[in-house]
Amino acid sequence: MTRFEPNLRIPGPTALPPSVREAGGRQMVNHRGEEFKALLGRVETGLKPFFGTEHEVILLTCAGTGGLEAAVVNTLSPGDPVLAVTMGAFGDRFAKVAEVYGAAVTRLEVEWGTAPAPGAVHEAAAAIADLRAVLLTHNETSTGVTSDIPALAQAVRAAAPDALILVDAISALGAVPFAMDAWGLDLVVTGSQKAWMSAPGMAMTAVGPRAWAAAETARMPRFYLDLRRHRETAVSGETPWTPAVAVLYQVDEGLRLMQAEGEGVFARHAACAAMTRAGLRAIGFRLLAADEVASTTVTAAWVPDGVDWKAFNGALKRRGLILAGGQGRLKGRIFRLGHLGSVTTDDVLAAVAAIEAVAIEQGLPVEPGAAVAAAQRAGIEAGRAAAGVA
Amino acid sequence: MTRFEPNLRIPGPTALPPSVREAGGRQMVNHRGEEFKALLGRVETGLKPFFGTEHEVILLTCAGTGGLEAAVVNTLSPGDPVLAVTMGAFGDRFAKVAEVYGAAVTRLEVEWGTAPAPGAVHEAAAAIADLRAVLLTHNETSTGVTSDIPALAQAVRAAAPDALILVDAISALGAVPFAMDAWGLDLVVTGSQKAWMSAPGMAMTAVGPRAWAAAETARMPRFYLDLRRHRETAVSGETPWTPAVAVLYQVDEGLRLMQAEGEGVFARHAACAAMTRAGLRAIGFRLLAADEVASTTVTAAWVPDGVDWKAFNGALKRRGLILAGGQGRLKGRIFRLGHLGSVTTDDVLAAVAAIEAVAIEQGLPVEPGAAVAAAQRAGIEAGRAAAGVA
Repeated sequence: MTRFEPNLRIPGPTALPPSVREAGGRQMVNHRGEEFKALLGRVETGLKPFFGTEHEVILLTCAGTGGLEAAVVNTLSPGDPVLAVTMGAFGDRFAKVAEVYGAAVTRLEVEWGTAPAPGAVHEAAAAIADLRAVLLTHNETSTGVTSDIPALAQAVRAAAPDALILVDAISALGAVPFAMDAWGLDLVVTGSQKAWMSAPGMAMTAVGPRAWAAAETARMPRFYLDLRRHRETAVSGETPWTPAVAVLYQVDEGLRLMQAEGEGVFARHAACAAMTRAGLRAIGFRLLAADEVASTTVTAAWVPDGVDWKAFNGALKRRGLILAGGQGRLKGRIFRLGHLGSVTTDDVLAAVAAIEAVAIEQGLPVEPGAAVAAAQRAGIEAGRAAAGVA
Repeated sequence: MTRFEPNLRIPGPTALPPSVREAGGRQMVNHRGEEFKALLGRVETGLKPFFGTEHEVILLTCAGTGGLEAAVVNTLSPGDPVLAVTMGAFGDRFAKVAEVYGAAVTRLEVEWGTAPAPGAVHEAAAAIADLRAVLLTHNETSTGVTSDIPALAQAVRAAAPDALILVDAISALGAVPFAMDAWGLDLVVTGSQKAWMSAPGMAMTAVGPRAWAAAETARMPRFYLDLRRHRETAVSGETPWTPAVAVLYQVDEGLRLMQAEGEGVFARHAACAAMTRAGLRAIGFRLLAADEVASTTVTAAWVPDGVDWKAFNGALKRRGLILAGGQGRLKGRIFRLGHLGSVTTDDVLAAVAAIEAVAIEQGLPVEPGAAVAAAQRAGIEAGRAAAGVA
């Protein structure tokens, strides 16, 4: 089956809407000029409500991983006691960054596919003398689990009031409600290629007053990712180094689309997640995450027993459905379906239909239409729930 | 005068050709898939002849400054004796990066607008015990000066055979012939938004065997910019972190255009530089750099006595000519005209014509047509010289 535009269902880069693609193809401007100044200001301001912050949003030209590194090196010194709460490959990466720069990292690891319990985080934080920072993952892209950030933050504050709370919110911010200031978070990172419907190349970082204060004394070395240099130049509408101008064009346009959609952004993502889960379950796929901790932006499912994932995935690819495999210890054992950014309920129906078709081809005991029917029903229910709330 | 597309004559970001703009607007692909693998391989291979290297080219998602940081942190340890040869703001920046990460930096500073003499570099290198690395700037964007990299490298090798030679070639590589391997350079950095006619967001770094060996023992902390992680994943056609996919599309297309133009790329840049210099001189503007060290990609000129640069530049902007001001100690005293990337001789004629017109408006003693005539003649001469060589 030829599908002229693939159904790109990886958890980022996400498919670009037509107007975002057009923005990516725009001509360059002087990054030290008035036009750029207006663009930068608009994007910084437009991002704030999604972070739930009134503090500075800093745009870094790098991948999300660079944003995590910025979080660490701008607030910490070598030897600082740090608690890294990790539930997957990206939590491990955040911990690793802190270790590489010399922090004294204690890891609280929970089983992949589960979320950390506030009680365990409280206990772990209380056990570390002079705890300087806690690293949290909002949405673990490698497992499709979302943690309860406000509850975890409260647990940290109760155990160690002075510890900084640094949050990797790369892969769900923008797709779900978030309240950095109300939850007492100090630094939050996201990335352009996720819910923002833009090409990769920019990490957006919101920085609260405690993190700025920490930056004054932090002794980890930094230059390119120095947030203070970015804050200084932001005042005059510039970045310290040449920014990824075309990605900024795209994030600006992505934000315009999101602002026009309003609360619908969150409802759409919730519906797509529910539909994906219902559709996969209806044809016997086991999901990695329990419903209570399931991500709104990415769903991970176990590769069914007896299925050769490479062959299965090859058949999906030939139908134009692009999924992501497992990472780290889950490589070859799970697959992941991204439903974030420009995703529509129709994209999800098409995705579960393709998975259903290939499952049938491969001889799995699947009733034609089962996945699509279940996804449809879940979508109708999600729509009713959203309407009830509104 | 309305000019619907400005004449963007800053030394990067450079104006994008139509097909490069189109590439920037392409849909995303899976950055862990076959299509991306082919793209990455094509760009890495395509860049090598411009670097003049057979060694690895590593693509980093960051600005050129991030590339300079990668050069330092991947090869050096805190306390390492380093000689920073600087002739302007970007040389100073390179030195500063090494200092921030704890290198023992000795600076050899030459007057802005001049280039370092090989003899002075030899002397400075010989005077430093256990010299570990020398930082060189190929083309100083802040002053429009190109240094004689092969002569400087030879001077370093003679004085300190084991010292690494790390080169900032951000703003001229691709526009001029370069021979990293033949000149014995260890690490060379360039950036997508310069001669490569692409949006900013990617630093391309060629790494020789001595630099790779140094990376094994270098103790400066690094994670996001760790070149070894990039080399490891490059083997399977991937980058360790999500890359700036759309910038990569553009560099791929930029390379295609450059390959089609062949040696003409260098001749075009040389002609544009000669025309810019002749045109500005013909109307009495003094140039910062002497002809022997003048850059092929950016020309800096003094703001004439009695001229208010802000008003002058405002008039140029209204005519659609976008220039860059001075940096650091030259702010307000010089202006810079970029002639790199997609620049044509017509762009240069239009630029000098606009400067001539504003000079006349502002009451400078300028004969109408003088700048354009001189630029034309310099272009004809450059064309003859290029034909004679070919």
